[in-house]
Amino acid sequence: MNEHQYVLTFGCPDRVGIVARLAEFLAERGCTITEASYFLDPHTDWFFTRQAVRADSVTETVGQLREEFAPVAAEFGESVQWKLWDTAEVKRAVLLVSRQGHCLRDLLGRVAQGDYPMDVVAVVGNHENLREVAESHGIPFHHVPFPADQVGKRAAFNEVADIVDGYAPDAIVLARFMQILPPDLCEMWAGRAINIHHSFLPSFMGARPYHQAYRRGVKLIGATCHYVTSDLDDGPIIEQDVIRVSHKDTPEDLARLGRDAEMQVLARGLRFHLEDRVLVYGNRTVVFD
Amino acid sequence: MNEHQYVLTFGCPDRVGIVARLAEFLAERGCTITEASYFLDPHTDWFFTRQAVRADSVTETVGQLREEFAPVAAEFGESVQWKLWDTAEVKRAVLLVSRQGHCLRDLLGRVAQGDYPMDVVAVVGNHENLREVAESHGIPFHHVPFPADQVGKRAAFNEVADIVDGYAPDAIVLARFMQILPPDLCEMWAGRAINIHHSFLPSFMGARPYHQAYRRGVKLIGATCHYVTSDLDDGPIIEQDVIRVSHKDTPEDLARLGRDAEMQVLARGLRFHLEDRVLVYGNRTVVFD
Amino acid sequence: MNEHQYVLTFGCPDRVGIVARLAEFLAERGCTITEASYFLDPHTDWFFTRQAVRADSVTETVGQLREEFAPVAAEFGESVQWKLWDTAEVKRAVLLVSRQGHCLRDLLGRVAQGDYPMDVVAVVGNHENLREVAESHGIPFHHVPFPADQVGKRAAFNEVADIVDGYAPDAIVLARFMQILPPDLCEMWAGRAINIHHSFLPSFMGARPYHQAYRRGVKLIGATCHYVTSDLDDGPIIEQDVIRVSHKDTPEDLARLGRDAEMQVLARGLRFHLEDRVLVYGNRTVVFD
Amino acid sequence: MNEHQYVLTFGCPDRVGIVARLAEFLAERGCTITEASYFLDPHTDWFFTRQAVRADSVTETVGQLREEFAPVAAEFGESVQWKLWDTAEVKRAVLLVSRQGHCLRDLLGRVAQGDYPMDVVAVVGNHENLREVAESHGIPFHHVPFPADQVGKRAAFNEVADIVDGYAPDAIVLARFMQILPPDLCEMWAGRAINIHHSFLPSFMGARPYHQAYRRGVKLIGATCHYVTSDLDDGPIIEQDVIRVSHKDTPEDLARLGRDAEMQVLARGLRFHLEDRVLVYGNRTVVFD
Repeated sequence: MNEHQYVLTFGCPDRVGIVARLAEFLAERGCTITEASYFLDPHTDWFFTRQAVRADSVTETVGQLREEFAPVAAEFGESVQWKLWDTAEVKRAVLLVSRQGHCLRDLLGRVAQGDYPMDVVAVVGNHENLREVAESHGIPFHHVPFPADQVGKRAAFNEVADIVDGYAPDAIVLARFMQILPPDLCEMWAGRAINIHHSFLPSFMGARPYHQAYRRGVKLIGATCHYVTSDLDDGPIIEQDVIRVSHKDTPEDLARLGRDAEMQVLARGLRFHLEDRVLVYGNRTVVFD
Repeated sequence: MNEHQYVLTFGCPDRVGIVARLAEFLAERGCTITEASYFLDPHTDWFFTRQAVRADSVTETVGQLREEFAPVAAEFGESVQWKLWDTAEVKRAVLLVSRQGHCLRDLLGRVAQGDYPMDVVAVVGNHENLREVAESHGIPFHHVPFPADQVGKRAAFNEVADIVDGYAPDAIVLARFMQILPPDLCEMWAGRAINIHHSFLPSFMGARPYHQAYRRGVKLIGATCHYVTSDLDDGPIIEQDVIRVSHKDTPEDLARLGRDAEMQVLARGLRFHLEDRVLVYGNRTVVFD
Repeated sequence: MNEHQYVLTFGCPDRVGIVARLAEFLAERGCTITEASYFLDPHTDWFFTRQAVRADSVTETVGQLREEFAPVAAEFGESVQWKLWDTAEVKRAVLLVSRQGHCLRDLLGRVAQGDYPMDVVAVVGNHENLREVAESHGIPFHHVPFPADQVGKRAAFNEVADIVDGYAPDAIVLARFMQILPPDLCEMWAGRAINIHHSFLPSFMGARPYHQAYRRGVKLIGATCHYVTSDLDDGPIIEQDVIRVSHKDTPEDLARLGRDAEMQVLARGLRFHLEDRVLVYGNRTVVFD
Repeated sequence: MNEHQYVLTFGCPDRVGIVARLAEFLAERGCTITEASYFLDPHTDWFFTRQAVRADSVTETVGQLREEFAPVAAEFGESVQWKLWDTAEVKRAVLLVSRQGHCLRDLLGRVAQGDYPMDVVAVVGNHENLREVAESHGIPFHHVPFPADQVGKRAAFNEVADIVDGYAPDAIVLARFMQILPPDLCEMWAGRAINIHHSFLPSFMGARPYHQAYRRGVKLIGATCHYVTSDLDDGPIIEQDVIRVSHKDTPEDLARLGRDAEMQVLARGLRFHLEDRVLVYGNRTVVFD
């Protein structure tokens, strides 16, 4: 986990010999593979892989490897998608929050603990109350109030977008942000914007899921970490989990219990993203955990 | 669990003194209470309780207790609901099945193992293929074919209803029956008909839930045991559970993995019903587990 | 959960009429019972109960209730154990920590979030590195270094004891404290000192449980929240949970994954303690969750 | 899952180029890889892989493939372990049982349901009571009584061994057999004999684990599926799971609840074995699930 690695992710329409070609490329350079995963989707016939090699087993830099791998990737056609990540290049995240701080505190605690692979470069909040939490970790906090009217809201989104893009982050995390991103931001941040939804999607889409869950009398509540798309609550799912509840639990209890699921699911799902373990196809994900 | 008990279940609009009155009634008769649960629903202000007493701590028969308790219950108004069950009166169940036998086999196995509180008095199937399973346990199997047309289907339901009612069962279990009960049967069997739905309701209501789950790319699949009402897939939920799945699982894998959840959830939920642990109010349940 | 309640906990050798007597006492005072749990241990024949009543349904103060209840309790003999807690009297906790801050951060975050029923009155650490975490929450941090030699260690424990007792806490939480309390402190703090052990006890008692778990090749790792007694790792268990792991996980991965279980299990178990939901008998607990 | 596959499992000390060499071998023959997993154990530096290819993508028979692969495997030294399995060659299992039938019934039900990859060729029981269960599935049942004395027991084991070996099974399943295999049988059946232990090992090794669990007051009970070795309860673990319990559960309740964990864990672990997903090294397993 903490060793220095180069991580290759690769996806393309399947054909015989992909694994052999990639393996040959790595073997020629003396790479020690420490982790390798493959998946062939039987419905679309797309092939996906993620391979991690020990950085110290290779003499090339990651830049050289990228240059040398580009023509190999090109052999597999125009639709190939690939990335080569040097784990020494720590991923950068901006966290968007509203009033509730449990996910923010949990993520900042993990980073402070030294066991989470990201730098939080900024926190943006539409309320002031979490400023102190961010700043006690030495992280700049930007307050962008969200008015109720559509014009004011749009202006606020533009301001958020400017702030976020100024940091060029690898992940934009909606850590209980409670505002629906407009389609243009969804598109601009596609594959980087990650939301934690406080229900086991697709159950209880939309507003106040814990009240919906209470009314339906479910015996488990959940949380869903997914990529943000313009189809509200319908983006590709990265991770989900549930917590057992009972008739004794009020909607407020469900919300309190659910916060544990939200923290855990966001922390796990976001880690998969940061470690380049998630490949998206259509509205489904491959998660090489 | 296996000791001989009298079990009182009781529900009425809350007021001060219910617990005291019931406790007094039991104490006067020397009852040793081995299990007692209470619940006050804060939204409807209804009070629910289930109390189990050792049969050998009481000199009265259950019939006498019922007679003596009736006027006590009446003190709490007309809307009181109560039951007094003698665990020596083993509950009777009819199981309705289609082609898939995993829930049937699992339940019959539990009964044969001697650790499930019911007598299966009959199995009704709309196919012949599970006859042997029922008959190898010495249980009569009734084959009622279901034609595709509405008139034929209605006639088939009438035949099923006649067979079922002939057994006067305490539970009518739709063990993957795959046929939608008409409203009149739902009403006639209200509180006794129990279904196992192969999804984590309210996700993926309706047909082919595993295919729906596959398309949505969820990371957990589930099953729901609920009372049957005329609102399809919307009856009061008794029990639910989930199983972790991944991108590698095809719809067929989801169906196979899901069968484990179905068996477990039906076995647990039905047991709660058979042990008088479930009280229904609106479309919610109190489950005193 | 957040309503103002008086909570009665009560345990004594079973006899007919306890429930009736307690219920009568509460009914006479017009108490609205919002939650009530009972348990009769079949092996020891001890009876336990926890009952919560709405404070605003009673005219007496909690002090008056205590006075009036004392003679009622006395009717059941000398061995009766009871408490009457006013939820407005927020429980006070001292947290003991070493170098690892995940449990500390998690608990302080829950308190800051406003959904955890305790005041953290002090943090005591045998290292300096978590001072800032405590102080950023406005909580005094006491540094007590622990030397390696037995005499120095004993002196350090005495200093910790003086600091802790100065706060008269309801809970002394060993939040990954990594030091074994001497028997006299175990006794002095009996029923108040709570530890989080980083294994699913009784598996992997003693030192370095994640390394033990790795060597044994288990497929789940866990955490255990228990009362501290002089029998190391053998105190009454309050709560446990597990997390799935695989052959891919190194001892370091197990430690990282396990931290999530530790945080969750400590937060749940400690909450049970703070809400007077745990009754201890022998080295077993009744947890009225 | 149900498609016809050839499955290669392979393990050897790591060196650069293994993946490339295997991939080349498969690519040369036009194999479509549908599933591939790799693992490098950082402690022993052994490399393990499992690769499944579509049988219809290859013109060679599995026999030819084995012949052609042997020299490739030999390139990697003497310690290489490999197997090539044709999924059309259904694995054969003998089940050993005692009085309790839940695991037997569950496994036979899965096979009857058509979704479990094995042929049960015989059941051996040291009591007569499960004969009917086996025979109702058309499977021969052999009754071998186990006397209390050591000489008689040894003779009984010899008889069991003769019966089992007569079937040349791929799996010998101790489905709650309750007899400790002598070391020579452990050795003879190494890697083929699979046990379900009714605790979360290494907790509660030895006899009456549910009574041990009750006395310790644990909040979860479990089950462990492992290979049988002469170190009692200490063989390589294949699969484990747990079930939540409470103070209300007696040792008998724990046993009843635990049976669900036993059935599930055995069914999952045995399936991994039957699908060649388990590679053993030392007393640890790689499980490519």
